[in-house]
Amino acid sequence: MTDCPLCDEQGGTILWQDAFCRVILVDEPDYPGFLRVILSAHIKEMTDLPAADQMALMRVVWAAEAALRKVMAPDKINLASLGNVVPHLHWHVIPRFAGDPHFPNPVWATRLRDTPHAAPADLASLLTAALENSLNGVATPRLSADPALRKR
Amino acid sequence: MTDCPLCDEQGGTILWQDAFCRVILVDEPDYPGFLRVILSAHIKEMTDLPAADQMALMRVVWAAEAALRKVMAPDKINLASLGNVVPHLHWHVIPRFAGDPHFPNPVWATRLRDTPHAAPADLASLLTAALENSLNGVATPRLSADPALRKR
Repeated sequence: MTDCPLCDEQGGTILWQDAFCRVILVDEPDYPGFLRVILSAHIKEMTDLPAADQMALMRVVWAAEAALRKVMAPDKINLASLGNVVPHLHWHVIPRFAGDPHFPNPVWATRLRDTPHAAPADLASLLTAALENSLNGVATPRLSADPALRKR
Repeated sequence: MTDCPLCDEQGGTILWQDAFCRVILVDEPDYPGFLRVILSAHIKEMTDLPAADQMALMRVVWAAEAALRKVMAPDKINLASLGNVVPHLHWHVIPRFAGDPHFPNPVWATRLRDTPHAAPADLASLLTAALENSLNGVATPRLSADPALRKR
């Protein structure tokens, strides 16, 4: 055990992963389809990563965005890397719909209504298929293979 | 005039720009150093951009992050591309400090205190110098040179 929940736990249902990062489906009733892309290594800021790894992580973020657009056709995608509470690089990839609980506010702002957007029953498998379609075969950066970069 | 404020207005004090995008200093008393990286073209989602332009825009976002880290040494950088209100690609790059008005909440969540972090009087010129140092000489993608991609 470490003091970092993203080093110790999966953080949700894993839809896709390799040694470098994982894409998880967050259990958030207000936002079915809320994904997080979590770097395997315990690193705090994007500018702490080498350029090739910055781009590799963003390619997975764009794949998550594309999967959500394909499967859910949201009105907008919200992307954020905050990490004030858990300073271990992770990207929120959130499908937003006009009329969802906070729209047009950010999901962290005032909640306006009780109307989560409906999602297909097989959402996880549809998103996994879309992620595999765009990501499998992409080379894995070496960074996360270095165990020294995992928090102990 | 269009119906898009980021097509019609600068959106703040321009610290750096080329034909592809601009970096502006937001007038936000709670967050001195709050930067936005705004794409010139009126495009909604990152996955609407060609891969080379996705990466070009993120290189400017990383440069903004690096400039803030160099000049202000924040405790955390927050990055977000939301666009629910203004669906024209722009990245928020926000220096966060333990004890700032919302920390550790996102800046869009509940405000906790009246203590903006102090910033140097010459903040804009320091950030501009840092941006120029990392960005000048970087090739400009062709995208924004196409006037058809600007909203009319």
